[in-house]
Amino acid sequence: MVQAARWLGLSPDHVFGLAALPYGSYTAAHHAEEYRVGVAIGDRVLDLTSATGRLMPARAHLFAAGGLDDFLAAGDLAWAQVRESLTAWLSEDQFRPAIEDLLVPAAAVSLRLPFAVADYVDFYASENHAANGGRMFRPGAEPLPPNWKHLPIGYHGRAGSVVVSGTPVRRPCGQSRPPGADAPVFGPSTRLDFEAELGFVVGARSHRGEPVPVSRFPEHVFGVCLVNDWSARDIQFWETVPLGPFLGKSFATTVSPWVLPLAALQHARIRPPSAAASLLGYLTETAAWGLDIDFEIRLNGAVISRPPYATMYWSPAQMLAHLTVNGAAVRPGDLYASGTVSGPEPSQRGSLMELSWNGTEPLGLPDGTSRTWLQDGDEVTISATAPGADGVRIGLGSATGVILPAVMESPAGRD
Amino acid sequence: MVQAARWLGLSPDHVFGLAALPYGSYTAAHHAEEYRVGVAIGDRVLDLTSATGRLMPARAHLFAAGGLDDFLAAGDLAWAQVRESLTAWLSEDQFRPAIEDLLVPAAAVSLRLPFAVADYVDFYASENHAANGGRMFRPGAEPLPPNWKHLPIGYHGRAGSVVVSGTPVRRPCGQSRPPGADAPVFGPSTRLDFEAELGFVVGARSHRGEPVPVSRFPEHVFGVCLVNDWSARDIQFWETVPLGPFLGKSFATTVSPWVLPLAALQHARIRPPSAAASLLGYLTETAAWGLDIDFEIRLNGAVISRPPYATMYWSPAQMLAHLTVNGAAVRPGDLYASGTVSGPEPSQRGSLMELSWNGTEPLGLPDGTSRTWLQDGDEVTISATAPGADGVRIGLGSATGVILPAVMESPAGRD
Repeated sequence: MVQAARWLGLSPDHVFGLAALPYGSYTAAHHAEEYRVGVAIGDRVLDLTSATGRLMPARAHLFAAGGLDDFLAAGDLAWAQVRESLTAWLSEDQFRPAIEDLLVPAAAVSLRLPFAVADYVDFYASENHAANGGRMFRPGAEPLPPNWKHLPIGYHGRAGSVVVSGTPVRRPCGQSRPPGADAPVFGPSTRLDFEAELGFVVGARSHRGEPVPVSRFPEHVFGVCLVNDWSARDIQFWETVPLGPFLGKSFATTVSPWVLPLAALQHARIRPPSAAASLLGYLTETAAWGLDIDFEIRLNGAVISRPPYATMYWSPAQMLAHLTVNGAAVRPGDLYASGTVSGPEPSQRGSLMELSWNGTEPLGLPDGTSRTWLQDGDEVTISATAPGADGVRIGLGSATGVILPAVMESPAGRD
Repeated sequence: MVQAARWLGLSPDHVFGLAALPYGSYTAAHHAEEYRVGVAIGDRVLDLTSATGRLMPARAHLFAAGGLDDFLAAGDLAWAQVRESLTAWLSEDQFRPAIEDLLVPAAAVSLRLPFAVADYVDFYASENHAANGGRMFRPGAEPLPPNWKHLPIGYHGRAGSVVVSGTPVRRPCGQSRPPGADAPVFGPSTRLDFEAELGFVVGARSHRGEPVPVSRFPEHVFGVCLVNDWSARDIQFWETVPLGPFLGKSFATTVSPWVLPLAALQHARIRPPSAAASLLGYLTETAAWGLDIDFEIRLNGAVISRPPYATMYWSPAQMLAHLTVNGAAVRPGDLYASGTVSGPEPSQRGSLMELSWNGTEPLGLPDGTSRTWLQDGDEVTISATAPGADGVRIGLGSATGVILPAVMESPAGRD
């Protein structure tokens, strides 16, 4: 096992140890306008933009712009080479003089959106989540839609609304139709929710007209991040038939600042439940790309759920194969999310809608209050860890957001 | 009335006369790698990148990159100034020496996607189109969904699949469930369709959390283009419940190469049907942004439909107000389309699904053949004209595409 260099003073069980090495983009306090690519190591961030300039000049252009875009586009050979070099720099004493001054305390940097989001797709890959929805809204009927076990259902979301962890989320206004009412009303959402999801970040592009087979998933997808697909259920339910979610989702989607490369997740790979099913050829997977990742959701600091990603029915390789089977191409910066991660147990549900059973079973919090839906000022934090190399656990960091009160002005009044 | 300079030799009824002046992006045959912004004037294209360098150096940087992105972002003052200057250059003889050598025959240029598409949204704003769908698929029931007259229904599409007119469209493969079958099958779509739409191109950005009121539509939207929202009905119908269209639409969306500025459409403005309805405040429009644009759809050269845009229920100002009412921001390059334009008459329907009544009434063509759905080799061309200044008609150009046969390989077989 490769160990982090002793001079780093890294605890061996730190989730941002040598087995993780996630990438992000930051500005340091003393260079507020200067973006840099950083790699998390323990409680510090390595300035990769400067480090490659010193130690790996042939790849330095990939990090010069300070975001991950060029690195994502560079493809899997570049991803592997940079990770291998990073591992050497952080484990061999000879590199200490070259990198020690490039390590900054994580608390001293401001993390920003790590890449420019091209197209954003949201899947619906948790059987428990989909079935919970069916039980709530179509009681007595078959909980899953007829197509659910034949294809990973997905839809396009709003790329321009993806924000980095820590960005406050304004409660949206919109139309909804109260139960029993004839006509819709306009106002702040009263059923604001979160959805804990895993996001997959596309690096290398594919070509229009050429589907990406399940086996080529790791050539195109660089890594993963955490996603909170904030949802205004009242707006969503009124608008969603027949063309799907729109404004109920498009006001904000939060992602974690660190993108963990697939290379770090080799030890988390498991067979997803769909591996036991008989599927159409393009969805039949030989390599296992289910992922044993443990999620944790905190509301105002209290853990309210621990969804197990291992229960997700569809793998991300199947999602990518489906997304492209009609000839649609993927581009660097495409982001596709798993859909809400919900396990079979009530304590493993990945949305407040499920945790409060559509508002009928308030969720008690340690401070003595309870929630059916999110209140103004509530802070939701999604974090996750996974098995890494040599029995250590690696971290995906966290995605957090605080709800700001709605601005209830009539847009027409702002003329 | 301002007349085009006589030396241009322009026919007064040319749809690309001085009243139109649409913008595009092109490469000339002798500079294949060099992109330029062009303005259509008659059967020629003015090299605006070079012309502003000579005559308007303060604005030249907006066109230096050869696409419309920087110009879109520059905002309505820049849009107005450039249009005013263009009008002078093309009407006053004094400018002949400065621009004559910058006019190239339209046939000698290769037009490309005029701007980088940020987020793509597709609306559903034609009452006739929506009601036709209801009559076909929910016979005996209310043809419109309950929310249809309360809000402009929309959903996000795939920005990365937007291609410029002339790009061939490969017939997509995918899952569908044949009528009466228990399980889905995989194969080339057998129900390939077009949808004739109008697209609205966003220029100036808005800010997250700040809805754009209907009255501010012309500050944010630069202009319009034609859109063909190609649709694979069999794929769409199987996937679409509950999260809406996905692969049935995401394989290709064709746009016309010319973006006609809103400034050219002042004489086409009419009150849309929704102006007579009682709507929630943010959708109540005082200025009329319905548009009297005549569409024409040709299949292999023969006109098969003439949809009137004037019948569209929701205006583009209402669509933008709705899109942003939850706080979602718009960015330069955002594209939102109207949805299929269908008039009340059978000869005014904007999709083959409606023209053939879901395949039950084959559409006869002049060559003696008929169509229920598109065949390989079929060419679909959407064009449109509108009233311009002083009684002339102005053109939006056309969006065309030829269907290529599916590549029916098993993606798994390509490993």
